[in-house]
Amino acid sequence: MSGTVWDKRRTAKRQRIAAATEHVDGKLIRPDALRQVLEAVIHPGDRVALEGDNQKQADYLSRTLAGCDPGRLHDLHMLIGSVSRAEHLDLFEQGLASRLDLAYAGPQSVRMAQLVADGTVSVGAIHTYVELYARMLVDLRPDVALLCASAADQHGNLYTGPNTEDTPTIAEATAFHDGIVVVQADEIVPAGTLPRVDIPGDWIDLVVRADRPFFLEPLFTRDPKAIGPVQILQAMLALRGVYERHQVVSLNHGVGFSTAAIELILPTYGEQLGLKGQICRNWTLNPHPTLIPAIESGWVESVHCFGGESGMNRYVAERPDVFFTGADGSLRSNRVLCQLAGQYAIDMFIGSTLQMDARANSSTVTEGRLSGFGGAPNMGHDPHGRRHATPAWLDLQHGDAADLRGRKLVVQIAETFQSSGTPTFVESLDAVQVGRDAGMPIPPVMIYGDDVSHVVTEEGVAYLYKAPSLVDRRAALAAIAGVTPLGRGADPGSVERLRRDGLVALPQDLKVDPSLADRSLLAARSIGDLVAWSRGLYEPPAQFRNW
Amino acid sequence: MSGTVWDKRRTAKRQRIAAATEHVDGKLIRPDALRQVLEAVIHPGDRVALEGDNQKQADYLSRTLAGCDPGRLHDLHMLIGSVSRAEHLDLFEQGLASRLDLAYAGPQSVRMAQLVADGTVSVGAIHTYVELYARMLVDLRPDVALLCASAADQHGNLYTGPNTEDTPTIAEATAFHDGIVVVQADEIVPAGTLPRVDIPGDWIDLVVRADRPFFLEPLFTRDPKAIGPVQILQAMLALRGVYERHQVVSLNHGVGFSTAAIELILPTYGEQLGLKGQICRNWTLNPHPTLIPAIESGWVESVHCFGGESGMNRYVAERPDVFFTGADGSLRSNRVLCQLAGQYAIDMFIGSTLQMDARANSSTVTEGRLSGFGGAPNMGHDPHGRRHATPAWLDLQHGDAADLRGRKLVVQIAETFQSSGTPTFVESLDAVQVGRDAGMPIPPVMIYGDDVSHVVTEEGVAYLYKAPSLVDRRAALAAIAGVTPLGRGADPGSVERLRRDGLVALPQDLKVDPSLADRSLLAARSIGDLVAWSRGLYEPPAQFRNW
Repeated sequence: MSGTVWDKRRTAKRQRIAAATEHVDGKLIRPDALRQVLEAVIHPGDRVALEGDNQKQADYLSRTLAGCDPGRLHDLHMLIGSVSRAEHLDLFEQGLASRLDLAYAGPQSVRMAQLVADGTVSVGAIHTYVELYARMLVDLRPDVALLCASAADQHGNLYTGPNTEDTPTIAEATAFHDGIVVVQADEIVPAGTLPRVDIPGDWIDLVVRADRPFFLEPLFTRDPKAIGPVQILQAMLALRGVYERHQVVSLNHGVGFSTAAIELILPTYGEQLGLKGQICRNWTLNPHPTLIPAIESGWVESVHCFGGESGMNRYVAERPDVFFTGADGSLRSNRVLCQLAGQYAIDMFIGSTLQMDARANSSTVTEGRLSGFGGAPNMGHDPHGRRHATPAWLDLQHGDAADLRGRKLVVQIAETFQSSGTPTFVESLDAVQVGRDAGMPIPPVMIYGDDVSHVVTEEGVAYLYKAPSLVDRRAALAAIAGVTPLGRGADPGSVERLRRDGLVALPQDLKVDPSLADRSLLAARSIGDLVAWSRGLYEPPAQFRNW
Repeated sequence: MSGTVWDKRRTAKRQRIAAATEHVDGKLIRPDALRQVLEAVIHPGDRVALEGDNQKQADYLSRTLAGCDPGRLHDLHMLIGSVSRAEHLDLFEQGLASRLDLAYAGPQSVRMAQLVADGTVSVGAIHTYVELYARMLVDLRPDVALLCASAADQHGNLYTGPNTEDTPTIAEATAFHDGIVVVQADEIVPAGTLPRVDIPGDWIDLVVRADRPFFLEPLFTRDPKAIGPVQILQAMLALRGVYERHQVVSLNHGVGFSTAAIELILPTYGEQLGLKGQICRNWTLNPHPTLIPAIESGWVESVHCFGGESGMNRYVAERPDVFFTGADGSLRSNRVLCQLAGQYAIDMFIGSTLQMDARANSSTVTEGRLSGFGGAPNMGHDPHGRRHATPAWLDLQHGDAADLRGRKLVVQIAETFQSSGTPTFVESLDAVQVGRDAGMPIPPVMIYGDDVSHVVTEEGVAYLYKAPSLVDRRAALAAIAGVTPLGRGADPGSVERLRRDGLVALPQDLKVDPSLADRSLLAARSIGDLVAWSRGLYEPPAQFRNW
């Protein structure tokens, strides 16, 4: 089209940056002028990507944005990975923002459900993390990104340290489409003195020194003290019935006490079974403190991380043969790459769930809470774009002739009852009703039953990948659902048949002695034990210390 | 384990770099000493990632490596995305390398099949590109990476230019696990003068000035001259039967003349249908020259690219509102991020195939050729980790209650006969026999039939996502398979039933008049026309010029 202008975004960017000139020195924002700068570079109606990852939060920028003048800034469309801070929702209550696309809303899930109900927040969709970033390259391209780093220099070069996580991805999506990238850094250092450059200064427009270090949540720390015999029995069943049986070499663990128990019995029960060196060698995993004993015992060849974990920095830095680290010695994490690895390069995902229906659909969304998905849906499905074979993947092979292929192990591990006494197995997920109430086009299901290959409870293992029909799937689940309503409906004759056909294995079928399921099997029984295993390198956050 | 050494890789790296000291100035390799440096930093048995992407090739490094002394370097395990140069296989014939993991072997596919058969090359697996990179973070972690860039400075900062593609991903996997990263750069420039920094120097160990610019293949250029009425009819059927019907807003096109025809009839036929602004707005796509008329006509809001394309650099640089570009003005491509976008953020993938069986499995692997997969399997499946809804995705919804969800459109477009006169539709894919002959654990199928939602031929459209059984799937395919053996087996009564039930649409059902399928419908009929549409900004490579 003759006369078409093809660089509107670039021109707009130049004008916005120019409007902030009086408040900046080069790329550095004067500390007392952050609000004015945000009001200059952000325009009403903008799509604003605000960094709130799984763990790290650009909280100086979000707090300051929440203090901006709604007369100047309004109708913002916020893209926030993890809505976990109060000011994320204050933005909406104060009339600055109206639309929200997100991935997770853990701590704010109740308030969010209310704000959605009263129309204050209009939700585009609830995504997984990487799905939200994917859309930043397609139909949700940010106009402005508000990010965080550990350190920056005056050229905008960034050091993200062990918590690199999602920062490079959001920066790339914004910087390379003429959006404006604003970064809070814990410190500003002279050029050439950053421990390493994680993001080149070319991608960064403005930097401000944060008023305090960015907020970080220790999401992946599980205190072994809270692991009891039920989780240990589950761990034993999983180890024999899944890991050993299918020879799982590469894997991802979700976060939960059952999977933490598995990590902690590798050096004890796993070693007794002679599995060291055979299984669990290559991990895609945040630096779980409960993996320390297995690493120290020589089980673990490599760990690639989505993000970091509070307290694990010194330990990781001293184990570079295992972890991915930079030239400066500290961890390199990267959510998108770790997701890629977890999707296309591992044998198994195993994670916990709070609620599962009789088709094995599961969700952590419960009544009155609009939480979200995190990364479980990405890890918890069989990627049909995989083409290489491993023994575990081939062990679940199906189809014939051209259709012959393997399958990723997607394992759900759950106790039959939650600690609240409510049954885990239900006829209908709460998520169905929550989705309906919130006007969502489909129910917010975390992992679909047809993607689940195995379910482990303290009663046994259901091999769902062998279930030819929904009736068999239900029967196999019922057989390991204990005294929940679903389990009480199990027909003893049918259970025998399912065991014979290999759809279900009970502890005796797996040669697991439940009487041995005891805390003595845990390689570490406390946070203090983990510190000892780490030779003092693990430095647990204050809330996990009792000494 | 007391006494365990945890930094073996770091120590080895230091020693190897030290062994090359006499041949380097800082990070710069002396041009006449590249072979000596490679022999010093690579050790026998190493895993070596050699950059051969879809398009760009680190050919100075691969040619030099092929000239190394097999007495010093042997048993290398090569990780090569695209085995497209003779010296990639010379490495094996000359005794330098023994094992190969790859994604694609287009131009070398015949020779590779022979070398596999005689045992010279031991293939780990044939992957997709991103699957191979995923394994570099898990169980195929490189010891050394040999990469290429457009320019570098003495600190190792790299400018990759429009062809960023896979370089940052391979560099990250290697640099952050104490591997050695060696880069060939077309030019070495003084610090501070790179047009932009694509990869920070911290990640790069050694740089050498290439003897000539890195090799680049124009893989995504299709000359409109070669598009005939059959492809135009297919394009019309696809536009009405798929794009318009499902309101496809975001999409990826494979490479082929049929999809090029679709791109070229958007400004003509698409415009007549009143579809401009409604469909085809957001693309994940290399810069296809045949998309120029649609861009110039205002159809295209955004394009995010896997890689660059020869001749398109100036055009892309002048269209920054559409393409992702850097502060220097040139294209930013990134295969991993574009794959992420194509997986989680788009409505549809459509691609061509050479051969399809009656279950709709397809493959480009044919007798005597071990080619590979590229990115089609990643784009060509429904990602079960997606959680947001779009109208097109919801239009293919299935399941009930918790199981309710949408589906990505995966469309295969094929002529019933290949230009060689062989039928496209066959009882058994050649890939099954090729896989068997090569000892592959599963047949090298490109896209599985159960992932395909639609098939388009010049006879009509099969809506496979509506086919409840394999019998229906076969019948729907037969109805559009023309006079191939499969098509001749179609029962006319059954075709009527399939049309009534919406499993098949013939041209009249879609109100497509085949007599209008004419080259006059193409917005550009030659490379010269594309240059004119681009206002001279598109600069076609020599082999596409006839003036």
